[in-house]
Amino acid sequence: MPDMQEFVPYEETLLYRIRHSAAHVMAQAVREIYPDVRFAIGPPIENGFYYDFDLGRDEAGAQRHFTEEDLEQIEKRMREIIKGKHRFAYKEVSAEEAKKLFTGQPYKIELIEGLERGEVDEYGNEVKTRPVISTYTQDTFEDLCRGPHVEHTGQIPANAFKLLSIAGAYWRGDENNPQLDRLYGTAWEKKEDLDKYIELLEEARKRDHRKLGRDLEIFIFDDEVGPGLPLWLPNGGVLIEQLEAFAKEVEERAGYVRVRTPHLTKEDLFLRSGHLPYYAESMYPPMELEGVRYYVKPMNCPMHHKIFGSKPRSYRDLPLRLAEYGTCYRFERSGELFGLMRVRSMQMNDAHIYCSVEQFEQEFMGVIALYHQYFKVFNIDRYVMRFSTHHRRGLGKKYVNNEDLWVQTEEMVRRVMTNGNVPFVEVPDEAAFYGPKIDVQIWSATGREFTLATNQVDFAQPPRFDLTYVSAEGKDETPLCIHRAPLSTHERMIGFLIEHYAGAFPAWLAPQQVSIIPIADRHLDYTRQVERRLRDAGLRAEVNDSSDRMGNKIRKAQAMKIPYMLVVGDREMEENAVALRMRSGEDRGAIPVEEFVAYATGVVREKQYE
Amino acid sequence: MPDMQEFVPYEETLLYRIRHSAAHVMAQAVREIYPDVRFAIGPPIENGFYYDFDLGRDEAGAQRHFTEEDLEQIEKRMREIIKGKHRFAYKEVSAEEAKKLFTGQPYKIELIEGLERGEVDEYGNEVKTRPVISTYTQDTFEDLCRGPHVEHTGQIPANAFKLLSIAGAYWRGDENNPQLDRLYGTAWEKKEDLDKYIELLEEARKRDHRKLGRDLEIFIFDDEVGPGLPLWLPNGGVLIEQLEAFAKEVEERAGYVRVRTPHLTKEDLFLRSGHLPYYAESMYPPMELEGVRYYVKPMNCPMHHKIFGSKPRSYRDLPLRLAEYGTCYRFERSGELFGLMRVRSMQMNDAHIYCSVEQFEQEFMGVIALYHQYFKVFNIDRYVMRFSTHHRRGLGKKYVNNEDLWVQTEEMVRRVMTNGNVPFVEVPDEAAFYGPKIDVQIWSATGREFTLATNQVDFAQPPRFDLTYVSAEGKDETPLCIHRAPLSTHERMIGFLIEHYAGAFPAWLAPQQVSIIPIADRHLDYTRQVERRLRDAGLRAEVNDSSDRMGNKIRKAQAMKIPYMLVVGDREMEENAVALRMRSGEDRGAIPVEEFVAYATGVVREKQYE
Repeated sequence: MPDMQEFVPYEETLLYRIRHSAAHVMAQAVREIYPDVRFAIGPPIENGFYYDFDLGRDEAGAQRHFTEEDLEQIEKRMREIIKGKHRFAYKEVSAEEAKKLFTGQPYKIELIEGLERGEVDEYGNEVKTRPVISTYTQDTFEDLCRGPHVEHTGQIPANAFKLLSIAGAYWRGDENNPQLDRLYGTAWEKKEDLDKYIELLEEARKRDHRKLGRDLEIFIFDDEVGPGLPLWLPNGGVLIEQLEAFAKEVEERAGYVRVRTPHLTKEDLFLRSGHLPYYAESMYPPMELEGVRYYVKPMNCPMHHKIFGSKPRSYRDLPLRLAEYGTCYRFERSGELFGLMRVRSMQMNDAHIYCSVEQFEQEFMGVIALYHQYFKVFNIDRYVMRFSTHHRRGLGKKYVNNEDLWVQTEEMVRRVMTNGNVPFVEVPDEAAFYGPKIDVQIWSATGREFTLATNQVDFAQPPRFDLTYVSAEGKDETPLCIHRAPLSTHERMIGFLIEHYAGAFPAWLAPQQVSIIPIADRHLDYTRQVERRLRDAGLRAEVNDSSDRMGNKIRKAQAMKIPYMLVVGDREMEENAVALRMRSGEDRGAIPVEEFVAYATGVVREKQYE
Repeated sequence: MPDMQEFVPYEETLLYRIRHSAAHVMAQAVREIYPDVRFAIGPPIENGFYYDFDLGRDEAGAQRHFTEEDLEQIEKRMREIIKGKHRFAYKEVSAEEAKKLFTGQPYKIELIEGLERGEVDEYGNEVKTRPVISTYTQDTFEDLCRGPHVEHTGQIPANAFKLLSIAGAYWRGDENNPQLDRLYGTAWEKKEDLDKYIELLEEARKRDHRKLGRDLEIFIFDDEVGPGLPLWLPNGGVLIEQLEAFAKEVEERAGYVRVRTPHLTKEDLFLRSGHLPYYAESMYPPMELEGVRYYVKPMNCPMHHKIFGSKPRSYRDLPLRLAEYGTCYRFERSGELFGLMRVRSMQMNDAHIYCSVEQFEQEFMGVIALYHQYFKVFNIDRYVMRFSTHHRRGLGKKYVNNEDLWVQTEEMVRRVMTNGNVPFVEVPDEAAFYGPKIDVQIWSATGREFTLATNQVDFAQPPRFDLTYVSAEGKDETPLCIHRAPLSTHERMIGFLIEHYAGAFPAWLAPQQVSIIPIADRHLDYTRQVERRLRDAGLRAEVNDSSDRMGNKIRKAQAMKIPYMLVVGDREMEENAVALRMRSGEDRGAIPVEEFVAYATGVVREKQYE
């Protein structure tokens, strides 16, 4: 039976109401401490809530900000309000009444005016239908709000919430607007959940790929190169080479062939694909050469379509699976860049599968099988596929107007995932323009969620590129195209792996696999022999011949999370052995060199994680 | 003993004079046939000569052009002029006299005016010193010319020259100017040389990488992607993957580590490196993001310097060898693009070696050793290294002002090449700004010359990037940097290999290694088993299961230059054998499948060429 999860929107959960209510209680507490505060917005978010405040200016005209001490005081006052079990009371009001209620609150007034015009909801998000204007009141505090909330403040568990941090945030996310103080909090149903979450946050801080990436010498950013453009250091180079070699091996066995395509192209290509002008915002600006506009590519697909179309194809050529670790370039605002997770250039585990409708199900199953294979190797136990489908009313507008193909391919995708025991949730009316899509969410060892990759079924591009093949019946047919990138981009995948493994990569991925540590100088020659032997066996081993003392060398190897340390003294030298220490600290004692070689190469070959 | 060649500039050879004189004789012959012809320029070039003519317009106003028949007639008349043994007579003239002499010849008048202003020589090339204006006259023909020529037309071997082709060429290479007819000819000292050259041309036509690249499905160009931007088809993908895997293996053994760097960078990086503004002409125009100018990189070095500088370095870290198959982008005018040989984006077998002065010699020797290794594997028997050195008078102007380092590194390079038996020619006063350089010239199997790569010694960039390391004595020192790319770019290397091997790649490189050919449908199952066995052994094998007849399948495999064809009929099936046919046509008869596997995997593993 498929392990299908029931999909309950976050908005409908108790947790959502607790967090939303906590935000209101926090706002009340803030007003009691800073009576002149101006309120912006305060929604529940993943794992918690926030509220944006403007504390105004002090006598000298400088903007006032919250301090860490404020957080404690606010938290304390929140607990008192919670104890009061104040009811959350709902009221509908006219725009005029609302404006009167929020006199002296310019951000609220702006929101009310938006609501009045029917453009935005109370969080300032654009909406299509003119909403009802409403407020919620608890105790002395009334806020512009459509809910939902818990019944009374007592339902916010007083021992299961915590204020976390103060950040700056522009009003409505626009850097031309005033910068507000955002207070972040987290809230849970019970104390254990809070404790677990706080522990997770602590762990996440330790595993932060930006910190570990620097400490483990995996990548750097450089001011003269620019933001969002990582430079991969030699250790990062090993990770990339290993990932690529693995992907290529897997893809070759799965019948993919490899191509390589230019990173630059005339705008014609993206006009034909339809990315221009609609996708231009995410693209770099064009470069003009000899009167022709060129772009760096934001995606590889149109190039692969060109390769499919480079010669007449017959049904015998299908499925054609074109793979490329292609580099793409997407414009992200510098404020939105985030370590390796959001960058401006990325190398993608990309491939496009061209197949007939009859072949589609098997090909899609093949892609799912790749995911499973990778999940297993990378010790990913928890994942879910978010399956976005069309809705009939969007045909010809939001969606390519071919209902048969929609129904047919969606049914096939559903069947594949059900038969393959793939955990998935189905989200109607969120498909891509050109076909159903699957977003893959994975969870790291510490339970942090990552969006890994997207698979898409594509009916639209093949006809735009006039791609055809001659069927067994001699008829020209248009192939379907599956876009897939199970290993995501190097940037995102390695960012994930750093956090997932806390930098202690399985041996096959570890930049340095073995640190060989001579106890004294007289062991140096022997350690060099061991190093040669290990390298001949394909192991990434290095003698630490620095002048450090042994204990220090071991600590350094552990800090660099090197899987194996081989300590060598007189006895080891005499016995042609090494004393094996694991990075966990476990001491496995002296073993013959050949035994270690057999053991370590086995772990590497089998991609074991220990 | 080093196999040093004596370097005689082409301009000083007899061959140069023969070809130059042949150009004048051709011009005379043309004027006798087309009395109204206007002459542009006619220099000797590699392997021959050309002359550009403007035949004017016919009565209907259409530009007149040469025909193939004209070539024969001109050639015939040239032989008569040669027989006349007319002396080439030199005369110096004033600009005024020259203009009178060339009345009605607007191109010559333009050249004379240039000479008069002292801007250009008689070929229209820019010059620094105001030249003497001179002419050469043979028989009835006087031309603006500074020589040199043979003594009389009889010294042009009448049986060793040939007119080759007619091409269009813009006056002064500028597409805004009139298009002229360019007649190409070749001329040699003796008939055998001519015959050999014509044969070579014929062979080169057959080996032309642009033609074979398309026929063997290695790469394509696409109008919507743009000129100079090749798309590598799956067969090209195999070539690239094989080359990279080989280079990575060799470089790993040679102690290189791999990095990966962004393709985009803020202009700051190239301002620091000094490429901007001086190198801007060869770069793509900048892209502006958030008010900052970004460039696609024309070279990888500054990125590698950043990686060297990303942490404090000590003498223990040196030599540091950073390798990257990096993609670079250079602007070439579309008229200058040529197949894979001159492109707009290229992936380079790049690396930078950072070392101390003491380590330099050994590191340089290591690079030369790589070349030798590659030359052997790629069956390159003939090569020469052109060693460009500084000249004292250029110090501080053309060259970095550090004479000691120039002398020291040049002496070391010279010693390495001498000790290593490397054929080289030394070219004084042609070094790069920042150090001596070596250009590597290789010859293909048919004797065609290719410029493969450049090695450079660099004193200038490390200090610009503030690169230092702490010496054993605890002092801050600046490392030397060696730029090297023995396998050139994928584009140029594969272009060369296609022509060198005429597309019949050694098995380890061959995109498809084995074509398995069932004689009848009843052999299909068995051939599939053979295919599986071969693929498990790592061979790129495929059953040809099309409906073609056997003879046709063999012909197709031969046309695709697949090294091995395995034909399978009843007997082979019974005996668990295959009938092995080589692409040369040689029939090796039936051999057991396992014997073929052992044989072919051995050839691949040893990178044999047969």
